[in-house]
Amino acid sequence: MAKLKPRTLSGFMELLPAPQQQMERMMEILRRTYSLYGFTPLDTPAIEAAEVLLAKGGGETEKQIYRFNKGDTDLALRFDLTVPLAKYVAINYGQLSFPFRRYQIGKVYRGERAQRGRFREFYQADIDVIGDGQLDIINEAEIPSIIYKTFTELGLDRFQIRVNNRKILNGFYAMLELSQVAGDIMRTVDKLDKIGPDKVRTLLMEENGLSEEKADQILAFIAIRGTNEEVIAALEGYTGRNELFDLGLSELKSVTGYLAAFGVPQSHFAVDLTIARGLDYYTGTVYETTMLDHPEVGSICSGGRYDNLAEYYTDKKLPGVGISIGLTRLFYVLNEQKMLSDSLPTAPADVLVIPMDEAQQGYAISVATQLRTQGVRTQIYCERKKFKAKISYAAKLGIPFALFLGGDEEAAGSVTYKDLTSGQQKTADFAAAAADILAELEKRSAGKVIGE
Amino acid sequence: MAKLKPRTLSGFMELLPAPQQQMERMMEILRRTYSLYGFTPLDTPAIEAAEVLLAKGGGETEKQIYRFNKGDTDLALRFDLTVPLAKYVAINYGQLSFPFRRYQIGKVYRGERAQRGRFREFYQADIDVIGDGQLDIINEAEIPSIIYKTFTELGLDRFQIRVNNRKILNGFYAMLELSQVAGDIMRTVDKLDKIGPDKVRTLLMEENGLSEEKADQILAFIAIRGTNEEVIAALEGYTGRNELFDLGLSELKSVTGYLAAFGVPQSHFAVDLTIARGLDYYTGTVYETTMLDHPEVGSICSGGRYDNLAEYYTDKKLPGVGISIGLTRLFYVLNEQKMLSDSLPTAPADVLVIPMDEAQQGYAISVATQLRTQGVRTQIYCERKKFKAKISYAAKLGIPFALFLGGDEEAAGSVTYKDLTSGQQKTADFAAAAADILAELEKRSAGKVIGE
Repeated sequence: MAKLKPRTLSGFMELLPAPQQQMERMMEILRRTYSLYGFTPLDTPAIEAAEVLLAKGGGETEKQIYRFNKGDTDLALRFDLTVPLAKYVAINYGQLSFPFRRYQIGKVYRGERAQRGRFREFYQADIDVIGDGQLDIINEAEIPSIIYKTFTELGLDRFQIRVNNRKILNGFYAMLELSQVAGDIMRTVDKLDKIGPDKVRTLLMEENGLSEEKADQILAFIAIRGTNEEVIAALEGYTGRNELFDLGLSELKSVTGYLAAFGVPQSHFAVDLTIARGLDYYTGTVYETTMLDHPEVGSICSGGRYDNLAEYYTDKKLPGVGISIGLTRLFYVLNEQKMLSDSLPTAPADVLVIPMDEAQQGYAISVATQLRTQGVRTQIYCERKKFKAKISYAAKLGIPFALFLGGDEEAAGSVTYKDLTSGQQKTADFAAAAADILAELEKRSAGKVIGE
Repeated sequence: MAKLKPRTLSGFMELLPAPQQQMERMMEILRRTYSLYGFTPLDTPAIEAAEVLLAKGGGETEKQIYRFNKGDTDLALRFDLTVPLAKYVAINYGQLSFPFRRYQIGKVYRGERAQRGRFREFYQADIDVIGDGQLDIINEAEIPSIIYKTFTELGLDRFQIRVNNRKILNGFYAMLELSQVAGDIMRTVDKLDKIGPDKVRTLLMEENGLSEEKADQILAFIAIRGTNEEVIAALEGYTGRNELFDLGLSELKSVTGYLAAFGVPQSHFAVDLTIARGLDYYTGTVYETTMLDHPEVGSICSGGRYDNLAEYYTDKKLPGVGISIGLTRLFYVLNEQKMLSDSLPTAPADVLVIPMDEAQQGYAISVATQLRTQGVRTQIYCERKKFKAKISYAAKLGIPFALFLGGDEEAAGSVTYKDLTSGQQKTADFAAAAADILAELEKRSAGKVIGE
């Protein structure tokens, strides 16, 4: 029969079993952490009516979208998890309780130009808190603690959560009577890390047409650095001139003021007046998270406060705050940087049970059944192979323990088990062996997914 | 602004938060159970090159498929998890160890005519064991124990795993010199439950053109019932006439012989000579699983042994055995039949922390942070609402505990907590309250998802 060459499309991540186990562990940690903060899981379709998905319309997104017809229906694959959330909340408004806190970990689709580290199908892991008409600032203050907990649970330590407030920015530019061009200015300021303050100053004057005085005021403003207290003290100097600015500063004080109670150390947090996160959508606190040793990766967890989640679908005012982790890209980066721990188990099983002879198959099955009852992931190996091939199967997969069951073991109700890492082999009754193996497995699972 | 009416496409399941929690719990149980048997999780793209997905070609599937172009590429959404597995194994053959045991829980897409209980996007939960050239019968014998464990862990008791062997069927029809029309005969026999033996006999003669004698032989064969021993004893009467039949019987004996060692009670297992599971693909043991009280639902977990997983992609002979649960449909049926337990928690949080006044917000955050450290899913409620509205928020969501933190509590470092089910309210120091709450939560989580 003629064979067709199988392939996986470029831009689509498909992992081998061992890295997939690491990815699964990351997802499990995200689910558990998000749940700890009272977020409920949602699952929405990957396909939506195109008109619903594209209600907002617009630009880059529309070009990248996977859109197609089935029968008479114009369909599209979701390109993020926010639009489906807006749809969901608009449809189910009457049946939800607000604030509505949901997390969703799901695949989204963007037909971007394929390049290394860019994916067309990728997981996003989002949380959002949606209020009905209003939403207390405490929700914005809580987000850094969720980011901190999530990355700490994953095993990352060298990261920083950067926070700003759009009201402070918008208020500041209003003071300078630059509201009309604030968007352009923020785009210029966004280049600060790359080109440095002098060039930003030049651009502000030459491209944005600002006076030297205003450019200097902006540079002075974005140069504000230091501890939370120092930054806030510097910002206090601007108060009394613009209401929006004052409100933003008071929000920022709430966010920074509760950090300690939320368990976020100062070392992992910074107010950063240069971040803006897009232009229109966010209206209050905005968040970015960077890996200290890999600034080139950009933000690994971003989001912010917005005023109208579902304005295209409903008249209800639904303010919210949310963050998103681009999980597939994060996994790709961690893998590239060799930051995924190789000490955690990635084998499909903890124990490979090997009957020494066909006569012991029944005993092997009983032993495996008992191990599974105790929560040990167990595989029985009965293929007709040489003993050496069986051991090398276990070793190649990284299965930590092999159990050898011969006639002596069956007669005595015992098991012979070998730790394939240390090479140590023991014979013991089942209960003792199981306890020993469980204790060892627990030790080996104790680490974190990310090792720095 | 003009609003667009939001909608979710028909045939796409989108659950409210409480049932979604039940669905998530089911998926978590499937992941855990499959892992216990040494299956490794895989995740393949939902989109594949159409030519790869349709290599096998053919019939109904092709009509239902979601197929579309993006740029020059002819794409399709996967319609099952078996073809992607075949592709994966063919691509990664050199890097996998065989037997290769994988599970995959993922969405698949079929553009069927929309009707109640039929889904166009639905989860399948599959396991497969793939051998390289050969695969021991023990793998077929193990499958019923996985089915048994899976449904038992979900909480289902009133189900039966039905097993047959295609070699027995094919051998039997060869004995009758009916191999050429075996497919048609099996389709007729498949109607037995619906139309009864007399009508099957008539159809066998009138539609399949069999002699009265052969029709009677078939009816006698499929009427074989009883315990495993009784069925096998009856089948022994046919041995010595066809090699394939004899091999099939010996396989069936292996499968039934190891049931006890695998922990499968006889009550949940039956050899059923009427089931065949499709015509060409399966070559050995086949499985169906039925709910005893809901036979109208059909099989909720099916599969079997096949000889060539990836024949369209590779010359390698890759025999395997696998089963699949149509999870979305199963969930739908359980929900319709009111079989999903309502005693398990479906709230987004275990505890709602309510500061009595703004002055206690810091204390509330500290208490919530500590609860989360202990694994308690905790939400802080600081919206500006009346006290009654806060309690009714918790009650509506089914959050089991509310914590009230006033000035007295903060001064004493204590918490006042109310069990919203019993109405009982206590004040205690934090450690005692947390221990009490954790113990109560553990009790409430002890049940199973399915309640019969």
